Amino acid sequence: MDSYLIQVNGHRDHAAMLDVHLKTNGNSIPLGKVKGWKPRWAVRASEMSKKTFNPVRAIVDSMKVEPNPKKAMISLSLGDPTVFGNLPTNDEVTWAMKEVLDSGSCNGYAPSVGYQSCREAVAVYYTCPEAPLEAQDVILTSGCSQAIELALAVLANPGQNILVPRPGFSLYKTLALSMGIEVKLYNLLKYPEKAWEIDLKHLESLVDEKTACLIVNNPSNPCGSVFSKRHLQKILAVASRQCVPILADEIYGDMVFTDCKFKPIATLSTDVPVLSCGGLAKRWLVPGWRMGWILIHDRRDIFGNEIRDGLVRLSQRILGPCTLVQGALERILHRTPPEFYHNTLSILKSNADLCYTALSAIPGLRPVWPDGAMYLMVEIEMEHFPEFENDVEFTERLISEQSVFCLPATCFEYPNFFCVVITVPEEMILEACSHIQEFCEMHYQRAEGAQDLECDK
Amino acid sequence: MDSYLIQVNGHRDHAAMLDVHLKTNGNSIPLGKVKGWKPRWAVRASEMSKKTFNPVRAIVDSMKVEPNPKKAMISLSLGDPTVFGNLPTNDEVTWAMKEVLDSGSCNGYAPSVGYQSCREAVAVYYTCPEAPLEAQDVILTSGCSQAIELALAVLANPGQNILVPRPGFSLYKTLALSMGIEVKLYNLLKYPEKAWEIDLKHLESLVDEKTACLIVNNPSNPCGSVFSKRHLQKILAVASRQCVPILADEIYGDMVFTDCKFKPIATLSTDVPVLSCGGLAKRWLVPGWRMGWILIHDRRDIFGNEIRDGLVRLSQRILGPCTLVQGALERILHRTPPEFYHNTLSILKSNADLCYTALSAIPGLRPVWPDGAMYLMVEIEMEHFPEFENDVEFTERLISEQSVFCLPATCFEYPNFFCVVITVPEEMILEACSHIQEFCEMHYQRAEGAQDLECDK
Repeated sequence: MDSYLIQVNGHRDHAAMLDVHLKTNGNSIPLGKVKGWKPRWAVRASEMSKKTFNPVRAIVDSMKVEPNPKKAMISLSLGDPTVFGNLPTNDEVTWAMKEVLDSGSCNGYAPSVGYQSCREAVAVYYTCPEAPLEAQDVILTSGCSQAIELALAVLANPGQNILVPRPGFSLYKTLALSMGIEVKLYNLLKYPEKAWEIDLKHLESLVDEKTACLIVNNPSNPCGSVFSKRHLQKILAVASRQCVPILADEIYGDMVFTDCKFKPIATLSTDVPVLSCGGLAKRWLVPGWRMGWILIHDRRDIFGNEIRDGLVRLSQRILGPCTLVQGALERILHRTPPEFYHNTLSILKSNADLCYTALSAIPGLRPVWPDGAMYLMVEIEMEHFPEFENDVEFTERLISEQSVFCLPATCFEYPNFFCVVITVPEEMILEACSHIQEFCEMHYQRAEGAQDLECDK
Repeated sequence: MDSYLIQVNGHRDHAAMLDVHLKTNGNSIPLGKVKGWKPRWAVRASEMSKKTFNPVRAIVDSMKVEPNPKKAMISLSLGDPTVFGNLPTNDEVTWAMKEVLDSGSCNGYAPSVGYQSCREAVAVYYTCPEAPLEAQDVILTSGCSQAIELALAVLANPGQNILVPRPGFSLYKTLALSMGIEVKLYNLLKYPEKAWEIDLKHLESLVDEKTACLIVNNPSNPCGSVFSKRHLQKILAVASRQCVPILADEIYGDMVFTDCKFKPIATLSTDVPVLSCGGLAKRWLVPGWRMGWILIHDRRDIFGNEIRDGLVRLSQRILGPCTLVQGALERILHRTPPEFYHNTLSILKSNADLCYTALSAIPGLRPVWPDGAMYLMVEIEMEHFPEFENDVEFTERLISEQSVFCLPATCFEYPNFFCVVITVPEEMILEACSHIQEFCEMHYQRAEGAQDLECDK
């Protein structure tokens, strides 16, 4: 064996390279030039790819259970409104795409931030007196995921931190950790008392000199909560006091089915700069089309050209979203009839009602009423299910016994809850809820204190 | 002014944070907690966004010249075959998209690496006995740009290096530098003697222990060259000897219009693992649709699960390409008639002929015959144009005097050449060439040596 074996095994491996450099006393002769060095195959996946970690996938993939073969599987776990066919997009949306296809005018490269006319269309759609937008304030992206990725990538350096809601959507953490950005979780206050509002004291206590941005997700995935104007103002007050810009994930904007009203956070800000991320996915029911955007709100010129230029440069890496969808965007935004949105919301409300009512009647479960988005959180009174260690085990057994798949809220850093989507057709919700009821009745045990009380009688 | 002013100005700035930590003697009290610390607005663009740098944009944007108002502008600079309408995509491609739209079946999320059926379709299309492919060997991406981004991101860590051709496509460098990966340029040997083949000695001399991969772009942008089987085998021999995996940019695969034959490099490899990047952009003439792919060739299991898993994880960041195009992919690949490809190639050949012949007749220019892709490189005999310092100045003046825009090859790290696209309609090529001729005749000066010789007579 030759004398470079250790280093050779560590070929293209950081730690091993350090060893080598120590051994050569900091001499910078590259190994490839060292006489007697024999390259060997040792291709390693990058640190970044190893740090890219989707907790939902990790948790779900580790749940190696088979559904009950006697019952058809019902999945209430997918945040995709299209899977059951009960929520098709609007015909105007499809027609707009066909028009673009027929024209043959949108097959070439667009500018990496999107066609000017489409940026203009988005600006016109979302502008308002309190938060005016022009074409230059809009960056089109490959889905809202890329919007969030670019926003994080421009605002934060490795070693900095971002403030992320708990419970919250897992992508923030996935993206941040892959970029070497630290995640600090701020608490949402538990429903029903506080309606998942942000624990502002906790939030503010987390800010330090390395804080690059505050992520505000409203309406919330997975909570289904919609912040009041007053609460948004309080959040802005913290951001303003601490000088922390806001990354607003508003992909569920306007998807509110109760009396609550969605207010884009930027419309309430006097000074805090906001990157608001959105897209066609949820409201227009075409998540696979990957059309997202960043709206830059910066009326005090705090982001300035630096952040704008940074976003433009970052967009050049993969050159923006599909030009066909870009070409159809203006028509999609401006011609989709209001009835379409109303219809979606009334289905969501009716499903939320159905689901909430059914789950409320089940011993040991406490569903949380949602006002928007597409999800409903359910607390598991774990003390009544001593068989199960946590929400992951609870939902695992729910699959193997009842063939119903709910997402354990550990996926959202919030144990002892599970989350169901309310885009599922009515009859499936009812069936799923009845299976959940059977499951809970089977495993429910009255709390020890209550039992003692009974015995005392 | 409070005593933390320096740090405050450096809020969210790395260097300043280091200062602070030194001043507090490594004490880890976060600044945000330090009494008297007052946050101020100082939002900075991230280092990554600053390092994301497109040299073509930088060079082109710095060419602040106005075209000659008396002549219509002709741009020969855009690598987009769709801009002039002379190269429409095939009807089958459009029909495939409409079919998918009508079905309403591809509006939801696909797996982040693409629908299984589409990965299968790509595998079936590109598989061959020498380099068999299955669905699991295909990762669908948002255009070939994202394919290259993911391939680099999984293979290289910051501080490692990649080997990149000179002249070569600028995106490799843009992506690598943004990720902190060093770029080492290997030389292509100058035409006509060596037909832009790789200087293999130079290539091999650049390999060191930090080399993460070798990028081979064939057919070449911007050279239009197509490597022979023999030359590809020699490249593979270097990669094999040095144990360096190959990132093959084969987006122009099969776009060859002479007797040369394109061979995918993976079909000639016995051991070297290859990530081959391709897509619909060029051959199907729909670059804006952002449909790309990575083909994983790893018959010796050198990449192993680590690289495959890494690619899957990285793909979860932005969730793959538009599902409509994915849904249409099988039909696009399998039903586009062969005449369509032949027609594109015959137009490219005819344009290459026209352009080559016209430019060959111009004093001071030496066009280089291309065998494939969509570009033609032209050497400027700078000694005959003493007025101009370099190719950038030459092409700048060509705009202001003749309203013809050719890309200075400094954009490809190859000064004293310019590059023209051959997808432009015939009449525009002829007009552009006649303007270039007028320009060169105006500025051409016989070399001093030749003048001396004349004087001696």
